[in-house]
Amino acid sequence: MSKTRLEAFSDGVVAILITIMVLEFRVPHGAGWGDLAPMLPKFLTYVMSFVFLGIYWTNHHHLIHVTRGVSGGILWANLHLLFWLSLVPFGTAWMGENHDAAIPTAVYGVILLCDAIAYEILVRVILAHEGSSSELRKAIGKDMKGNVSLLFYLAAIPLSFVYTPLADALYAAVAILWLIPDRRIERHVVRT
Amino acid sequence: MSKTRLEAFSDGVVAILITIMVLEFRVPHGAGWGDLAPMLPKFLTYVMSFVFLGIYWTNHHHLIHVTRGVSGGILWANLHLLFWLSLVPFGTAWMGENHDAAIPTAVYGVILLCDAIAYEILVRVILAHEGSSSELRKAIGKDMKGNVSLLFYLAAIPLSFVYTPLADALYAAVAILWLIPDRRIERHVVRT
Amino acid sequence: MSKTRLEAFSDGVVAILITIMVLEFRVPHGAGWGDLAPMLPKFLTYVMSFVFLGIYWTNHHHLIHVTRGVSGGILWANLHLLFWLSLVPFGTAWMGENHDAAIPTAVYGVILLCDAIAYEILVRVILAHEGSSSELRKAIGKDMKGNVSLLFYLAAIPLSFVYTPLADALYAAVAILWLIPDRRIERHVVRT
Amino acid sequence: MSKTRLEAFSDGVVAILITIMVLEFRVPHGAGWGDLAPMLPKFLTYVMSFVFLGIYWTNHHHLIHVTRGVSGGILWANLHLLFWLSLVPFGTAWMGENHDAAIPTAVYGVILLCDAIAYEILVRVILAHEGSSSELRKAIGKDMKGNVSLLFYLAAIPLSFVYTPLADALYAAVAILWLIPDRRIERHVVRT
Repeated sequence: MSKTRLEAFSDGVVAILITIMVLEFRVPHGAGWGDLAPMLPKFLTYVMSFVFLGIYWTNHHHLIHVTRGVSGGILWANLHLLFWLSLVPFGTAWMGENHDAAIPTAVYGVILLCDAIAYEILVRVILAHEGSSSELRKAIGKDMKGNVSLLFYLAAIPLSFVYTPLADALYAAVAILWLIPDRRIERHVVRT
Repeated sequence: MSKTRLEAFSDGVVAILITIMVLEFRVPHGAGWGDLAPMLPKFLTYVMSFVFLGIYWTNHHHLIHVTRGVSGGILWANLHLLFWLSLVPFGTAWMGENHDAAIPTAVYGVILLCDAIAYEILVRVILAHEGSSSELRKAIGKDMKGNVSLLFYLAAIPLSFVYTPLADALYAAVAILWLIPDRRIERHVVRT
Repeated sequence: MSKTRLEAFSDGVVAILITIMVLEFRVPHGAGWGDLAPMLPKFLTYVMSFVFLGIYWTNHHHLIHVTRGVSGGILWANLHLLFWLSLVPFGTAWMGENHDAAIPTAVYGVILLCDAIAYEILVRVILAHEGSSSELRKAIGKDMKGNVSLLFYLAAIPLSFVYTPLADALYAAVAILWLIPDRRIERHVVRT
Repeated sequence: MSKTRLEAFSDGVVAILITIMVLEFRVPHGAGWGDLAPMLPKFLTYVMSFVFLGIYWTNHHHLIHVTRGVSGGILWANLHLLFWLSLVPFGTAWMGENHDAAIPTAVYGVILLCDAIAYEILVRVILAHEGSSSELRKAIGKDMKGNVSLLFYLAAIPLSFVYTPLADALYAAVAILWLIPDRRIERHVVRT
């Protein structure tokens, strides 16, 4: 079974998710700066979600690159990841409209957490299929970034109800963490 | 004639159908749990439709994998399948907004039934093109899952008017039936 | 220069055009047959436009299949075709909402006519690039279907203002003309 | 690392961006010429943005064609370009609704400028990865068109506030500049 279609389908879904978030930028009816200003929190949330989806896409790219073949289980673990990623535009739009509200901020974190767990499941299903001597297992390494991300999401969800900007800061920190180039990781760890 | 574009086009259409269903989650204006709660039936309908489209995508993946070439007839049988799949988001949105209403639930079943019939037609057109000694014919087997699915759809449509949740349960049963891993089938039957 | 990306990009655009037409089926708020009935003209227009886009996609598939390479001119002739195809969802939605009105019906015909002309231009640009001894020139043949289609569009546009259903019938006739299987053409003519 | 998925993902995103702009053509409720007329400025803005995205797509096609491999940095420089391209539909819709207003016209120019800068960054990241003796460096040449475009955007942004149609004319001039066939450039310069 070839992995071409799994890649093509995942590329399609992520490309659409990234672009439908733009549809939430409802065009203001007026034409002044005052009409543009209220869009700033929406825009910043869009930037962050774009980065998150970009991270998943590049990680997925690296992950499937070292995978030799696909099974039915891998197809479904991948669909499961795409399902949770598909909720990112909803979370983005809701938080973008209510950027200082606790619940939308916490829900955004729950979606990011489920994305991270679904990615982890996909990695494990692939590992089980590839076997312990696979190139992938060697490449996984300690996955510091993945663990730190999970920790930050888990902290941000309750913190949304204490002080919302702190949760936003934690989400942003995860995004920045993944953006930092790290040549050593690119060679050895799949996730970067 | 190569099958690459048939795969790419089908992947594109299914990827878009799966993601435009998310557009129906209109972001609530409020930011409380009370604003999120009414979305639950919509969400559950989305999960079910996501699984159905996922099933068709993985089945299509396996089906085309064992197909050697495409003809004009196969292209059109495939477009015919994509047509009926394209109605899934409409059915999902209508049933999601009226989850306890008989007619939307029955219409959802009619769409699923047409999807299943269109898939069956595609399989037959491919079989006619491949010839009786093809790898595909051997792989088809008895197609129990396909027959049970048809039966459940046919039962659910009239049952929508008797007791709507029963129809919902039958749809869910079909989705679960296909999700159950079945290693034996993966080797021998194309549809899994 | 390879033709893979031209195919992939065109597949993507047509897949999206076919599916965004479904977004025009705004879900009725009620849940009765009476809420579904007014959607019938919209649905029929959708079916017709789906068939038209399907025709262009399969024709494009065959056309590019016999093309050996692409040039900057071919890329742009292809983008020009995609531009006119991109107006089909608009024409479909307008005619679907006003199925007995002359102007939307005529505008739909104008869009179909421009699609046909753009396709013809693409064929000629490819022919100029491939040279007169190419496989494509032999495959083109007399292109009866193409010429009949152009004639029908040209007739339907003014007839929209005389008797609108007649124009609808002509559009449907073109769609059916292309759907009829024609094994001889499949071997010899690119367009089928 | 292969460049197939970078191409496929970029094709997907640009294909979606080009087509979601059509969603902004909200279907008029009436069916007369009077209902169509107010859409003209929107239509012209759509044509222009379609051409701009088409330019980026063909340039991207040529650029990646001469690129031998991709790195994590190239993936992110490409995502960065896609991010700014993703704002084109918003700019198009806002300017289309307010075609004689200074601020939407200036914002449209800012988006085009950021697109151009992001493209330039992508070129440089690829050059740094390919090395100075690469085919790409030879192909880049003087990039007159790119420099003229930047100059025109930089002029159009302040001019929007002086005389809006002049800014529109400058945008159109850039689009036309890129559409002019230039066989010599096609052979020597990547960007055409």
